Amino acid sequence: MISVSIIGAGNVATHLFNVFTKTKTVSVKQWYSRDLSKISSFKNKVSVIDKLSELTEADIYIIAVSDDAIQNISEALPFKQRLVVHTSGSVSLYDLDKKNRRGVFYPLQTFSKEAKVDFKNVPICIETIGKKDYPLLKSLAEAIGSAYYKVNSEQRKSLHLAAVFVNNFTNQLYRVAHEITESEGVEFDILKPLILETAKKIQNLSPYLAQTGPAKRNDKKTIKKHLKQLENQEHKAIYTLLTNAIKKTHGR
Amino acid sequence: MISVSIIGAGNVATHLFNVFTKTKTVSVKQWYSRDLSKISSFKNKVSVIDKLSELTEADIYIIAVSDDAIQNISEALPFKQRLVVHTSGSVSLYDLDKKNRRGVFYPLQTFSKEAKVDFKNVPICIETIGKKDYPLLKSLAEAIGSAYYKVNSEQRKSLHLAAVFVNNFTNQLYRVAHEITESEGVEFDILKPLILETAKKIQNLSPYLAQTGPAKRNDKKTIKKHLKQLENQEHKAIYTLLTNAIKKTHGR
Repeated sequence: MISVSIIGAGNVATHLFNVFTKTKTVSVKQWYSRDLSKISSFKNKVSVIDKLSELTEADIYIIAVSDDAIQNISEALPFKQRLVVHTSGSVSLYDLDKKNRRGVFYPLQTFSKEAKVDFKNVPICIETIGKKDYPLLKSLAEAIGSAYYKVNSEQRKSLHLAAVFVNNFTNQLYRVAHEITESEGVEFDILKPLILETAKKIQNLSPYLAQTGPAKRNDKKTIKKHLKQLENQEHKAIYTLLTNAIKKTHGR
Repeated sequence: MISVSIIGAGNVATHLFNVFTKTKTVSVKQWYSRDLSKISSFKNKVSVIDKLSELTEADIYIIAVSDDAIQNISEALPFKQRLVVHTSGSVSLYDLDKKNRRGVFYPLQTFSKEAKVDFKNVPICIETIGKKDYPLLKSLAEAIGSAYYKVNSEQRKSLHLAAVFVNNFTNQLYRVAHEITESEGVEFDILKPLILETAKKIQNLSPYLAQTGPAKRNDKKTIKKHLKQLENQEHKAIYTLLTNAIKKTHGR
């Protein structure tokens, strides 16, 4: 049995709590939030606390708070030599106070409050300072059914940055498509199967090989037509920049 | 029974042939390609021809050739007053020769030669000049299990343009992510579940509501960190442009 205490009450903390309580090999000992009202509805399932000084012994302490708060929380922990991890993609491992054994347990996925999360689809990026601490975090990832990867700080930061491209920026392209179709009074829904297929395609094919379309073919006629069609200057700028990027990638 | 003859031997033509032959209500009468070798392997299943003059009567003639060739092919057809459609997203309905009844049967999806296509996930955008021709194309879409939408030319063109954003440009963002992770020697695979989830998320939520991340929050510290991290000038330009677009969309 792995005993875990969770610090924080945001999306990641809540999804981790939910998945831990479903396993047979992880027990959540305590759940801390400075605002007890955020987690008080769970008080029948776990000991909820709002004072760090009340934290008792656990195998792993998971700090799942906003990036800016991680350092202060880790400094305020009232114990030493225990395993403390944060869940952030961009915060340094060394921001954790060195009085404890330090690690990172970074779930690389988009979490929203409402949507259910299947941790089979959440890769966990694990980093530890002490080699001995790695197996325990690995077991924790296994317990929730997640794939896990040993990554160093630079690699984690590059994943976090790449995630902005494939998640936030991709979503903004969906938004632009929504604006384009809406302006002609046509349903955005028609594009949804294509959006899904585009994401599925690269599960087994590199993005390089998966590319198609006018930019890759350097189909000047269609590109010109599209640019003429675009009235919004921002859409035009995105079209031009990404068309040029595709051309360059494919040696056009 | 709807009788169809297919003109062209590319991806769309081949996938349409395959799905038509699986239905009970569509029969493919003839398949034309100017290069017979491309379709000769199908000669046990259908009459394959390489002369337009050999085309016999059918309910629908589907021209699935490259955009530039549609007009010439339609002019070269040796009959009148029959229903002729093309499958292009960007070619005008009026590029088809007016000696025949004209329409568009545009499958909005990404097709590759190898990958199997499930037409349940291929919306068909239908356009006709004659109102009477619409029901037949609608029945054809129904026969292959596709959702269908009546769209006019402007709407079809806006869908085709929007498809470039959600397919080609999104795929280029995947490519950038691949380059970023590769440069740190970390597996691109780790990002694949996030890529899929990002596409799934907007199936039931607007892209506007689905947005998260540093740009939406206007988290200047993280944005600055990311820009510093990016060494490739092209990646930097994409990061800046899309970050600003997200900020603008979300009133930051």
